[in-house]
Amino acid sequence: MLARASLAASLIEDAEISALFGAQAEIAAILRFEAALARAEADIGTLSEAAAETIEDAIKSFAPDLAAIGQGMVRDGVPIPVLVKALRAAVGEPYGAFVHRGATSQDAVDTGLMLRMKVLLGLLCGRLDTILAALETLADTQGATPLMAQTRMQAALPFTAADKLATWARPLAAHRARLAALGDALPIQLGGPIGHGVSFGAPYEALRAELAARLGLRDAAPWHSDRTLILDIAQSFALLTGTLGKIGQDLALMAQNEVGAVSLPGGGASSAMAHKQNPVAAEVLVSLARLNAGYLGTLAQSLVHENERSGAAWTLEWLVLPEMAQASGAALSHASVLLAGLRFQPRTEP
Amino acid sequence: MLARASLAASLIEDAEISALFGAQAEIAAILRFEAALARAEADIGTLSEAAAETIEDAIKSFAPDLAAIGQGMVRDGVPIPVLVKALRAAVGEPYGAFVHRGATSQDAVDTGLMLRMKVLLGLLCGRLDTILAALETLADTQGATPLMAQTRMQAALPFTAADKLATWARPLAAHRARLAALGDALPIQLGGPIGHGVSFGAPYEALRAELAARLGLRDAAPWHSDRTLILDIAQSFALLTGTLGKIGQDLALMAQNEVGAVSLPGGGASSAMAHKQNPVAAEVLVSLARLNAGYLGTLAQSLVHENERSGAAWTLEWLVLPEMAQASGAALSHASVLLAGLRFQPRTEP
Amino acid sequence: MLARASLAASLIEDAEISALFGAQAEIAAILRFEAALARAEADIGTLSEAAAETIEDAIKSFAPDLAAIGQGMVRDGVPIPVLVKALRAAVGEPYGAFVHRGATSQDAVDTGLMLRMKVLLGLLCGRLDTILAALETLADTQGATPLMAQTRMQAALPFTAADKLATWARPLAAHRARLAALGDALPIQLGGPIGHGVSFGAPYEALRAELAARLGLRDAAPWHSDRTLILDIAQSFALLTGTLGKIGQDLALMAQNEVGAVSLPGGGASSAMAHKQNPVAAEVLVSLARLNAGYLGTLAQSLVHENERSGAAWTLEWLVLPEMAQASGAALSHASVLLAGLRFQPRTEP
Amino acid sequence: MLARASLAASLIEDAEISALFGAQAEIAAILRFEAALARAEADIGTLSEAAAETIEDAIKSFAPDLAAIGQGMVRDGVPIPVLVKALRAAVGEPYGAFVHRGATSQDAVDTGLMLRMKVLLGLLCGRLDTILAALETLADTQGATPLMAQTRMQAALPFTAADKLATWARPLAAHRARLAALGDALPIQLGGPIGHGVSFGAPYEALRAELAARLGLRDAAPWHSDRTLILDIAQSFALLTGTLGKIGQDLALMAQNEVGAVSLPGGGASSAMAHKQNPVAAEVLVSLARLNAGYLGTLAQSLVHENERSGAAWTLEWLVLPEMAQASGAALSHASVLLAGLRFQPRTEP
Repeated sequence: MLARASLAASLIEDAEISALFGAQAEIAAILRFEAALARAEADIGTLSEAAAETIEDAIKSFAPDLAAIGQGMVRDGVPIPVLVKALRAAVGEPYGAFVHRGATSQDAVDTGLMLRMKVLLGLLCGRLDTILAALETLADTQGATPLMAQTRMQAALPFTAADKLATWARPLAAHRARLAALGDALPIQLGGPIGHGVSFGAPYEALRAELAARLGLRDAAPWHSDRTLILDIAQSFALLTGTLGKIGQDLALMAQNEVGAVSLPGGGASSAMAHKQNPVAAEVLVSLARLNAGYLGTLAQSLVHENERSGAAWTLEWLVLPEMAQASGAALSHASVLLAGLRFQPRTEP
Repeated sequence: MLARASLAASLIEDAEISALFGAQAEIAAILRFEAALARAEADIGTLSEAAAETIEDAIKSFAPDLAAIGQGMVRDGVPIPVLVKALRAAVGEPYGAFVHRGATSQDAVDTGLMLRMKVLLGLLCGRLDTILAALETLADTQGATPLMAQTRMQAALPFTAADKLATWARPLAAHRARLAALGDALPIQLGGPIGHGVSFGAPYEALRAELAARLGLRDAAPWHSDRTLILDIAQSFALLTGTLGKIGQDLALMAQNEVGAVSLPGGGASSAMAHKQNPVAAEVLVSLARLNAGYLGTLAQSLVHENERSGAAWTLEWLVLPEMAQASGAALSHASVLLAGLRFQPRTEP
Repeated sequence: MLARASLAASLIEDAEISALFGAQAEIAAILRFEAALARAEADIGTLSEAAAETIEDAIKSFAPDLAAIGQGMVRDGVPIPVLVKALRAAVGEPYGAFVHRGATSQDAVDTGLMLRMKVLLGLLCGRLDTILAALETLADTQGATPLMAQTRMQAALPFTAADKLATWARPLAAHRARLAALGDALPIQLGGPIGHGVSFGAPYEALRAELAARLGLRDAAPWHSDRTLILDIAQSFALLTGTLGKIGQDLALMAQNEVGAVSLPGGGASSAMAHKQNPVAAEVLVSLARLNAGYLGTLAQSLVHENERSGAAWTLEWLVLPEMAQASGAALSHASVLLAGLRFQPRTEP
Repeated sequence: MLARASLAASLIEDAEISALFGAQAEIAAILRFEAALARAEADIGTLSEAAAETIEDAIKSFAPDLAAIGQGMVRDGVPIPVLVKALRAAVGEPYGAFVHRGATSQDAVDTGLMLRMKVLLGLLCGRLDTILAALETLADTQGATPLMAQTRMQAALPFTAADKLATWARPLAAHRARLAALGDALPIQLGGPIGHGVSFGAPYEALRAELAARLGLRDAAPWHSDRTLILDIAQSFALLTGTLGKIGQDLALMAQNEVGAVSLPGGGASSAMAHKQNPVAAEVLVSLARLNAGYLGTLAQSLVHENERSGAAWTLEWLVLPEMAQASGAALSHASVLLAGLRFQPRTEP
């Protein structure tokens, strides 16, 4: 409700992305994991076809009690105990006990996260494509505009808008490739209570391979206490907002009245000075870059993951990663609007 | 809506505190500023009594259009242009133009923030009182329990629960005093478009004093581009969650099965191991401490505030400070529950 | 040695400050603690005059073996075991055993740090005085220069150099008062092995008061595991470099060729463009502000101090606080040079 | 000199690594760049053989004046203007002017950094090999030791030392591969004053390819204002120390007296409690992990790189990256010692 969200939230709100981190999406992804786990067990022959089918059917029509799961979250630190109990009840005898068999909360939560990350990374790639196309259009239509390059905050030598645009497009294209590569290699998490797979019995590796195939994820050794991947995802977010923040900073500098090298779309009004046109979106890009930079450092603290599972470190991830994703999405949106309406203005002298 | 908020959000959700940062509360505080400004001008004789009264009356019955203000926020980077325009229209001729006279967005937004901070700091003090009382009760009822002190992760020498409790209560009592002192000294912000007060004419200092008195805030020179106070508030939050995180860490260490120096209330269930009782709230305290520590560093980046007002640095504050407040409130709530149900268990040997 | 230190180190090198954090200064401060402890015990009657005198004399002529202490540091994580053993040997029978009696490493190290912090804070205050005087001189001699105020990176309204200078001087004066107040209230640390003072016997509080008086520090309850003070010192550093970084940012923006509102002394040469004059010192102020902002967040992580003493958190302090002090001193030096040679240039239009 | 360096510095001192960041090494790498640039120009035919040979010879016998370069660093913000001037003088007429032709400071400094990074990454890989071998030996000799896995700070289920060791070795092996891949793909930086290569004339791309081949680096488009690579290197450091910090945390937890799952080599002495054996190296690993995590966030702030070159952002890199490298090297050394002397102790019950 708008009345409860802060006004500043409207600067980073992104319905498409926040939906991926909502309770509903999180539970849906976990249920997908539980269904695929049962199905994979049936496929490798450790669960009867009837059991798998019953579980899959139950999951299809399962209506999670969000309020109860939320309460369970606070008590248990994870949604799984309440969710699995309800799911087993929904499956009923004799197959209920086979739901989540051998698995631990982290298997469901982390694999669920990967399923949602796949969507997210695709979504960010799509937005980056729009921005890369906008940069190309700018180069085509305004690339010849003469500008003054600036090094160390001083006028350096003349160059063109195309030269400037290339310095923006190059890292963004690289980030797009990085996001796509990350998305293509997202792994399942499957290790059981203490992360060594023994709870799944002898066919553990076959089960993992089957589960990964079913979920469109990569088979991988358990990474319960090795959070490298989480930090790599966060790094890709920080790089993305960092480059967009660099573009925002450039635009704010170029849009200074004394410089006048660009005019920006949608300049913000001032409550006190009618003549002003503030580079709001450009500034917000800088803010989001600095925010995500800070988050990256905070998240890196969670690499110190105690023993076989750290509740403290894992919870910290949950409080940081969605915020970084949201900031990334918002930065892409602001950048899109900015670049779509950008007009370079010839500057041949400082 | 639970479906949109993440499950992890339930670990830091705090309705009382998030309400203070919602659009409605923010706008209400800004309107309080605008009404008090008009009234203060009348009091010092630079506005007619009729104008002040009309403005005050209009504000009393003013129904802000949250959606329009939200759109203005994205475009202008601040809510004030849209809000003031609507407010002037509501006041109508001939006094509309006197609304927000001489003031700038930052005057309204920062003073509004201070008004809400006053409530927030009081609220945190109240929760700290509860916790300090719980610590005292623990000392009274269980203080004699023999425990083993631990230095550098090794058993050191015997001491008592009272000794341990003293190391928790001492910093918390100091933080409470700090929060109260901060709350008592929160200043108005009044400087006009470029922060030097000239827009208010000769009686600028009298106006400031009157406005401060009316709002129950401290009179202060403009701090548009000097964000020391914001960082001091953030520091108080980080210290608070830092100490609570230290308590959480202590409790998680003491609750280890091999140590057994405490039993904690409400231990979380595991989806895979029925015998486990996880110290969820204690872990969350650690997570929130690390989160706020990171936020403090991020917010400190906004001290580099360009010229007379930095949109980028100011926006960064808005994205960070409410999160820190929320984490602080949540940590106090988790700590309250933990301490209320805490039972020390005698440990005389490592 | 210059050949081993990085070239960038020359941007933050500060002999006066780094001397305070060198092994020699650290050990000297620790020895001052040990001598004062013996003397204070004699004064309150728990040690014979002869013992105290012998210990004091031995310390006067004690030549610490820095290499051995360095090796002890790596093995023990603190310098005290090796140092105290050597000191006891130097005192010899029958009084050797009375050296460091009742005390723990942390008492010596933290009190020693406070003794050095007192010098450091005084030194920073002295440098701030120079800067505040330079700002006053600038206001007197160039204050009337017309400038264009800039809000949100856009020309706002005309004001004067004096108005600008006031926004720099105000926070710096407040920081100076903060540093001085911190310096006046630095406490001793005295708590014994597990921080509750029992090792000093009944006259513990008298001993603390006497020790504090002898060392010119404040008497205080032990703060072994409560690192609020360390974070407050760090906060004062981050605020200082933050404000200086803001001044640096302002200067770099004002010195842009297109803006031309200031000329800076000692502009840096470019290896490729002879016409350039880079605002090097102003940029370095921004770098140091961002560095210290980051350090503040890192240091805040050490608030999560496990049990009665955390080796990990304490060590983190040692790796961060001296760096912050060094950056603060360097920023003051750079700012001094910048402000001494600053010339405002009239700008009445954007 | 030990008297000037802090005692804590002995915990992170690493002569091999700090040498790579000393002035001498930095200048040597820059000279290598300048020689290779001249040679590459001759190879593609834009410089006479005689000129290239004269420059190469002059560089071979060139004795840089470190003090003068250090002063130039402070004034110019980079060492190149002073260095190139001296080098041109050493080359003399008629070829002096061809030294550094077309290049800018950043070309020399960044390419020089890459040359040293190549050595550094190789060095870290070597140390990681030692650690991976130690982990394998531990698995071979003590892998069967029964241990109790711990999740969320609670005893979970029995497993073995081999299971535990696998969770340490897996991420370290991945980090080793990452470091090696980074080292194999380090690029030259060559873009000229404003980073678009025009100063090198038509054969710019041929020159780049030739230079890269000569220096054993990868040819790459200029990355003057795109610092992705710097952040990727930093990320690899943070991951490395993060995993080692996780191992340190595990060891400190396992070495608790009440747990007794490991005994560590070289336990530190306490100045107050003779019975204690502190897990100093394990704690230092945690400290270094948290330090580098913080640095990663700080460094990410430098992604907001203004226009064609940001002095402030670039300087921030210089203040952070060498510290991270040093912490990484030190962590590897501490871990090596710890793992070499580690003894698991059977624990079958909590």
